[in-house]
Amino acid sequence: MAVQPVAPQAANRDNRLLSVDELREQLQAVGEERYHHKHPFHLLMHEGKLSRGQLQAWALNRYYYQSIIPMKDAIILSRGPDPVFRRAWRKRVVDHDGDATSEGGVKRWIKLAEATGLDGADVRAGKGILPATRFAVNEYLNIVRSRSLLEAVASSLTELFSPQLITLRVDKLRQHYPWLSGGLDYFEARLYQAPEDSQFAVNYVHDNAQTRAEQDLAIQALRDKCDILWAQLDALYFAYVQPGWPPPGAFRVEGA
Amino acid sequence: MAVQPVAPQAANRDNRLLSVDELREQLQAVGEERYHHKHPFHLLMHEGKLSRGQLQAWALNRYYYQSIIPMKDAIILSRGPDPVFRRAWRKRVVDHDGDATSEGGVKRWIKLAEATGLDGADVRAGKGILPATRFAVNEYLNIVRSRSLLEAVASSLTELFSPQLITLRVDKLRQHYPWLSGGLDYFEARLYQAPEDSQFAVNYVHDNAQTRAEQDLAIQALRDKCDILWAQLDALYFAYVQPGWPPPGAFRVEGA
Repeated sequence: MAVQPVAPQAANRDNRLLSVDELREQLQAVGEERYHHKHPFHLLMHEGKLSRGQLQAWALNRYYYQSIIPMKDAIILSRGPDPVFRRAWRKRVVDHDGDATSEGGVKRWIKLAEATGLDGADVRAGKGILPATRFAVNEYLNIVRSRSLLEAVASSLTELFSPQLITLRVDKLRQHYPWLSGGLDYFEARLYQAPEDSQFAVNYVHDNAQTRAEQDLAIQALRDKCDILWAQLDALYFAYVQPGWPPPGAFRVEGA
Repeated sequence: MAVQPVAPQAANRDNRLLSVDELREQLQAVGEERYHHKHPFHLLMHEGKLSRGQLQAWALNRYYYQSIIPMKDAIILSRGPDPVFRRAWRKRVVDHDGDATSEGGVKRWIKLAEATGLDGADVRAGKGILPATRFAVNEYLNIVRSRSLLEAVASSLTELFSPQLITLRVDKLRQHYPWLSGGLDYFEARLYQAPEDSQFAVNYVHDNAQTRAEQDLAIQALRDKCDILWAQLDALYFAYVQPGWPPPGAFRVEGA
């Protein structure tokens, strides 16, 4: 559907199927290279060097990402022919949208955004988000719609890396931005949700990739997903840190 | 299909249909506010302050945009029920893909990229393009697929502004980067193609928007298209000018 990368970047000549441990190792290597834990915007965040306005810009833009996660999971649900798969995957939609007993991740992110001082209704409306955020996030929808179900599932696998980043982040946010402490429920929930989800997805990829070429496509989908996360932080850094040029119509930090 | 902006930004309460002159005036105002002629990357280019490597990064990334233009026009063709409309729009696919008598714009852009010193095959393969380029450009495909035909047509209307920018650019490229002079055929052709195309598209929007709300959606589509162009230059600036951080896996300027 959308135009995709021409070929997996590290095309390999070895056609042997990877074992589940080898697969996991290659997925981890993608994270080491490309996951956004190393992005300079996050480094500034964890060093306590972001202003309230910069954290607002982050919370506002990242909300757009959060808000489409249950939609992308619903797309994956809609493509899964197996009731057992759908039952397992449905959990994700519930985690984000909530149910009678839980408010869900989307609502929790709004609470985080409100803790930065933003108006929740403006955040929901996406008022002032960077076009580059929209483009990167919409690409995630393109991927889960247009590639194979295997690749769509594999693109979720940044959850292999997120618990470690979230643990560090919560610690650093409490330390450097104590006024945000009331808004961290989102992360607390993700700490137990993400490992269950990634466990399921790694096994799914291993059990359903029939060839090494399919395994490579799954690994490439994770690489592309990492790029989607990275590009969101590049855009935030460019607009709100250095050189600090939000595009026409985007959120402006007060006093900046 | 893709998630869209929540609402046109300057929702108006006046429901009167705009005349063709008023419509043209509002479209021009969008260009004044958002078209990328004012982007700092272009200003550097026109001042002769870009290095060969930075021009390579520009030519490489912009090729991805050029390469999908005839695909987006083919999508529009596929959505137009009227043979007269399709006959007029088909010209665009020919302009970019060429025919027995003309090599077409895509090929001409490759020649420009080669004039910067890049390998044409690498450029065609999209080797090293910024993920942010891919995301922004793929959003153009999302728009012409998922919005109304009217909005898809209106999103082409940056052609109202391009001849002026191209005239300036060709002049400045010849002046500051004379070694590029052999690669400028692309722009020469666009100088006569774009005005014909935008004339047709403005008239189409005027004749086919039945309500002011539809006119406003068309104007919003142009705004969103401007954002797609602007975001591509933001990403280039961030990666190759300041702070100068290409993301993992992207093209690196030699010696940088």
